[in-house]
Amino acid sequence: MQTKALPGFREFYPPDLALRSYIFRTWRAVATRYGFEEYDGPPLEPLELYTAKSGDEIVGQLYNFIDKGGREVALRPEMTPTLARMVAARANGLKKPIRWFSIPQLFRYERQQRGRLREHFQLNCDLIGEPGPLGDAEVIALAVDVMRAFRLGPKDVRVRVSDRRVLRTLLVGAGVTEAQLDTAYGAVDKIERIDRPALAAQLEAARLASTAIDRVFEIAALRGLAQVEQALAGVPGGEAAAAPLRGLVQALEAMGLTDFIEVDLTIVRGLAYYTGTVFELFDAGRSLRAICGGGRYDSLLQALAGVDLPAQGFGMGDVVLTELLRDRGLLPETPSSIDAFLAGVTEDDLPHVLALAHDLRDAGLRVEYALNVQAVGRQLKLADARNARLAVVIGPDDRARGEVMVKDLTSKSQRAVPRQDVVVDLLASLDGR
Amino acid sequence: MQTKALPGFREFYPPDLALRSYIFRTWRAVATRYGFEEYDGPPLEPLELYTAKSGDEIVGQLYNFIDKGGREVALRPEMTPTLARMVAARANGLKKPIRWFSIPQLFRYERQQRGRLREHFQLNCDLIGEPGPLGDAEVIALAVDVMRAFRLGPKDVRVRVSDRRVLRTLLVGAGVTEAQLDTAYGAVDKIERIDRPALAAQLEAARLASTAIDRVFEIAALRGLAQVEQALAGVPGGEAAAAPLRGLVQALEAMGLTDFIEVDLTIVRGLAYYTGTVFELFDAGRSLRAICGGGRYDSLLQALAGVDLPAQGFGMGDVVLTELLRDRGLLPETPSSIDAFLAGVTEDDLPHVLALAHDLRDAGLRVEYALNVQAVGRQLKLADARNARLAVVIGPDDRARGEVMVKDLTSKSQRAVPRQDVVVDLLASLDGR
Repeated sequence: MQTKALPGFREFYPPDLALRSYIFRTWRAVATRYGFEEYDGPPLEPLELYTAKSGDEIVGQLYNFIDKGGREVALRPEMTPTLARMVAARANGLKKPIRWFSIPQLFRYERQQRGRLREHFQLNCDLIGEPGPLGDAEVIALAVDVMRAFRLGPKDVRVRVSDRRVLRTLLVGAGVTEAQLDTAYGAVDKIERIDRPALAAQLEAARLASTAIDRVFEIAALRGLAQVEQALAGVPGGEAAAAPLRGLVQALEAMGLTDFIEVDLTIVRGLAYYTGTVFELFDAGRSLRAICGGGRYDSLLQALAGVDLPAQGFGMGDVVLTELLRDRGLLPETPSSIDAFLAGVTEDDLPHVLALAHDLRDAGLRVEYALNVQAVGRQLKLADARNARLAVVIGPDDRARGEVMVKDLTSKSQRAVPRQDVVVDLLASLDGR
Repeated sequence: MQTKALPGFREFYPPDLALRSYIFRTWRAVATRYGFEEYDGPPLEPLELYTAKSGDEIVGQLYNFIDKGGREVALRPEMTPTLARMVAARANGLKKPIRWFSIPQLFRYERQQRGRLREHFQLNCDLIGEPGPLGDAEVIALAVDVMRAFRLGPKDVRVRVSDRRVLRTLLVGAGVTEAQLDTAYGAVDKIERIDRPALAAQLEAARLASTAIDRVFEIAALRGLAQVEQALAGVPGGEAAAAPLRGLVQALEAMGLTDFIEVDLTIVRGLAYYTGTVFELFDAGRSLRAICGGGRYDSLLQALAGVDLPAQGFGMGDVVLTELLRDRGLLPETPSSIDAFLAGVTEDDLPHVLALAHDLRDAGLRVEYALNVQAVGRQLKLADARNARLAVVIGPDDRARGEVMVKDLTSKSQRAVPRQDVVVDLLASLDGR
């Protein structure tokens, strides 16, 4: 039999896992610096957790089934509903703002496209309980600092930022009615992917006046805070709508992150979800899908879990990020797998090898030795094969002198070290590894 | 709506996740010292990966279903079949012995018992390609060193070790036939849970002679290597059967771990799985289920994946371990969540707070500040609520002098620090946190 992994699921061999660990470690380090605390929920959830808000059409994309207890369940496709439930269950006891992050594995059952995965890992950072622009700045700065921690600069990645309140105010100011807003949002969202005549036809079908249609395209073409503020100055409610975006941009400027930020109203994102600031992080050449997306979702916790708290957050997956790091040559080198390999000259040396191996491991060193009796030369070949930094050879003559022989496998030098000093000596030799 | 988590699934709030991270971190640290490298596989697998070897009866305990592509699939109940597939796919390219570990979340759908979980995390360590007793010693020492890393000593936990080859040789020597062996194994396995007359009746039903039945109970009562060696000396093949167990015990002695080890033939474990050394780790008072179990499974990779390699390993779950650590008062304290809280005196100080926060975060410190404008006194209350070690206050007068005020929230002392020295000063103040 040769059962393979299911289509769209990854196996992580040690080099793949080392890369995944590097990404997770970096995510955790940056989130922690922002005071975010890690949480997790179940990978399997009741189906209604996802359908309650999004309706049944989402089921087409879910890994859902009926379990043996007759429950409709699904492998989690996103973390926010779980987050909402957990926050709601302890809403009164949790200090606000709540700063939480998680690194869930998420699942989707989409029709299989070439090479498209059905699972991925995603950093989720959410800040709950803060309505003002400093909260938005905090979350966007965290996402940018994750990029910087991966040694990606403003020439590599850019954050495109918009604000739904701004876009809405401008569209309404252009004569778009409430009933036409969703169509207009959709057109702005698709402006880079669908040509203008086709979009204009959609807007006409929604009965927008031709002047309003022209304005929609003008609004979508605005770039930078100054252009957006100028456009807002000409419409009712413009000043109020400008304030949060201005506060956000100024805060990011104070943090020294201006070079990463582009105000761009064509970033729209999920209509049922976001209520204010929205943003996406792209590679500067825009050759890949978005690295990260998020924003403010002030109504969602109420809708999902009955608790009225403003919230914002983002999700950043591991797949596009890894592609980008590989493109840029920023993947870390695979580290040496062990620090020291121990070799015994005769069979009588074995207990001494075992004792020293255990002492060195207790001191935190990564240590191996041959698990069957063989000549020293072959043992040292094993040491090389395992990419050990040092070899320690123990033989009867050395033992008679109370010593061991330490070989540096990089410099090919060797020296005798008193047995009682070996742990300290090796710790010093390996310092800075 | 109030959708709850599914029965048997845990939610990890930040304090729970901090404990889980402590356990994972310790597992990883010890496995790495033994030269083990981390891998992972898919949490969802084809059902036949589990039924191919264990047969259909295992399906009763699985979280299995039919996916939208018509495939029979299951949430992984164990890691070994995935490991076998991954090793087999690259068997020639992987250096032997293969030392791999993983920390999968595993799933079982057992009929719900009070408080019984349907998921847990499990450290899996496997050493593949080594037939001799030093391999067994390596794996058992790793498990013991995990206990020691959690500050559990030989008064807290014990490893009960047996060897299937020893038990088989003794049983055959006592007159048990091949056909009766499984029944005899079963009786030895259950000797502590079922009373002697009932077990004797089972053995009689399998047509064991009454002298053989008496010998089965004597064999099960043997304790320590010396008693086992003595018993083996009297049966055919006894010397050959004793050698691996003796080699194992001597190796663990050389490592200084004798105090943890009890040779005890009543440890039997899965018959279809293990072929040699078997072991289980228990709390010394035996009030909890096994903390860890494993052994040698030299035929399994051939049966599962068609690759003939000797192998051994163990699984250690997070649930019993956490209970034991809690019992013993060995759970770590929740660390202070942040290093420094920054406060601005006036609204004009905000950009300076943001800039300093970003500098400190870039230096690796965990930093927060108030996300809306409020009085300094309230900001410092927030600093206390977040359990910050230090507060940094920035006001117009301080700024005019090029300084900030650093308050130690533990000692309640404060001092002025030049703005350009703040990062270095705080790093030094927090050293050793």
